[in-house]
Amino acid sequence: MASKFLFSFFVAIFSWVFVGFSAAIDDTSLFKYVSEMGNCSDDMLNLDSLRKSLVREEDTIIFSLIERAKYPVNSPLYDERPGFSGSLFEFFVKESEAVQAKAGRYLSVKENAFFPDNLPPSLLPPCGSQQVLNPRGASININEKILNMYYKNLLPLITSDGDDGNYAITADRDLDFLQALSRRIHLGKFVAEIKFRESPQDYTRAILAQDKDSLMKLLTFESVEEMIKKRVEKKAMVFGQDVDLNENDNVGNYKVNPSVVSRLYGEWVIPLTKFVEVEYLLCRLD
Amino acid sequence: MASKFLFSFFVAIFSWVFVGFSAAIDDTSLFKYVSEMGNCSDDMLNLDSLRKSLVREEDTIIFSLIERAKYPVNSPLYDERPGFSGSLFEFFVKESEAVQAKAGRYLSVKENAFFPDNLPPSLLPPCGSQQVLNPRGASININEKILNMYYKNLLPLITSDGDDGNYAITADRDLDFLQALSRRIHLGKFVAEIKFRESPQDYTRAILAQDKDSLMKLLTFESVEEMIKKRVEKKAMVFGQDVDLNENDNVGNYKVNPSVVSRLYGEWVIPLTKFVEVEYLLCRLD
Repeated sequence: MASKFLFSFFVAIFSWVFVGFSAAIDDTSLFKYVSEMGNCSDDMLNLDSLRKSLVREEDTIIFSLIERAKYPVNSPLYDERPGFSGSLFEFFVKESEAVQAKAGRYLSVKENAFFPDNLPPSLLPPCGSQQVLNPRGASININEKILNMYYKNLLPLITSDGDDGNYAITADRDLDFLQALSRRIHLGKFVAEIKFRESPQDYTRAILAQDKDSLMKLLTFESVEEMIKKRVEKKAMVFGQDVDLNENDNVGNYKVNPSVVSRLYGEWVIPLTKFVEVEYLLCRLD
Repeated sequence: MASKFLFSFFVAIFSWVFVGFSAAIDDTSLFKYVSEMGNCSDDMLNLDSLRKSLVREEDTIIFSLIERAKYPVNSPLYDERPGFSGSLFEFFVKESEAVQAKAGRYLSVKENAFFPDNLPPSLLPPCGSQQVLNPRGASININEKILNMYYKNLLPLITSDGDDGNYAITADRDLDFLQALSRRIHLGKFVAEIKFRESPQDYTRAILAQDKDSLMKLLTFESVEEMIKKRVEKKAMVFGQDVDLNENDNVGNYKVNPSVVSRLYGEWVIPLTKFVEVEYLLCRLD
């Protein structure tokens, strides 16, 4: 307990000295720090870069959502199947993640597997970049929550009823979308780390008290959240339209209902990202 | 079996009555024929449906092109590597295709593997739909050509120089794009089958003479090709823009140069589709 207190005191002094009184995060130590976030190298050099990544990730999420919605729900894919330990979908995701693990995907701290147990090791050597997040915080993985939300809430909203038998390609589209969603949500670890460094005093107080509500309040900016929801709705309109050479054709036809994309962010992506942020901060001083 | 027969009989009668004697491709045998093109079921019931699929596939191709272009060229991914029989990319594609084969992807005549040798069998039973293309024509696979074009011509056009070390995710984006491209190009088999049924006399003469030039002429409609090139360029502008709530921001910024997408279609997608069509027709009467 005493060492924990001393450590957090040190952290607070350190960040006060180095982060100083500037509003933006731009000192060289953080620059180095954030530049090591990725796999072997990364362009997320500062808060501005991280924001750009989050905004760019919206496009990826919406593209992959539209591509999943191309197929009907195909529910037999998710049913338990004799001969499989689970569903065909689970089998597909586990086997695909094993291939991706061998190719080094999970060497990157930005990637989290949906079935992380028993993954084979990477065939590529680790790139030797130092751990840049709090180690306990870095290992947070809420993919089970994401998967449950996907099955229960999202799939019925974005797919039509029916079964066209294209299970393999449907599972592939599912995984693509889920990986984009997971990446976006787990970037919350970096958001939290950056926010902590911006206001170490405020966060340290709430962390020491393990006060989730205060942390959530510190992390919440409603006007920003509203802006994100409006932006992703607009993106869904732009990316989901049927583009034709005739300007007036297909106006108002969208491949995925734009209000569903706004809801996806408002009800799940933003809350789950903040959940990751709070979980990260709770162990930030360990 | 009897119920299946009754169902297709009903479908045939229905389409004969409702589609009638129009100039389009509408004979009942073709209706039945095309309705069995997919995996277990398919919505490509006629030429119009096939055209819609081809147009929709443009969106998939452009989304996945934009997503690949998010990463730099990452050339070590494609280099021969000690310990692998080939490159990391080849390893990744072979292993991913093996997973997808087990999940039944290649039961669909619309899907062609890039490394079709030694794929494991599907764990799902075949769905029992009858062969709907000429069997020799159905087995045409020009993915090696597509892969060579991708390495040599396309990758340098769509990626920036550099190496960010994100090889697994880059390979995943490559495969996604290549599969979309391959699906679109191999749909040429169905285009050719439908065109043959539209004008069997003209095609039979050229097929019996094994006259590739005449077949190519019969298959070529320059004004349609120009329209496709313009449409995909417009789609690249719409889908590749940076969407912001401020209308005037980011105008003219595209994630992939729209003229490259037009070139992709003009120089590779359309010619390779027509190559598949000619190859298919050459063995149509076998």
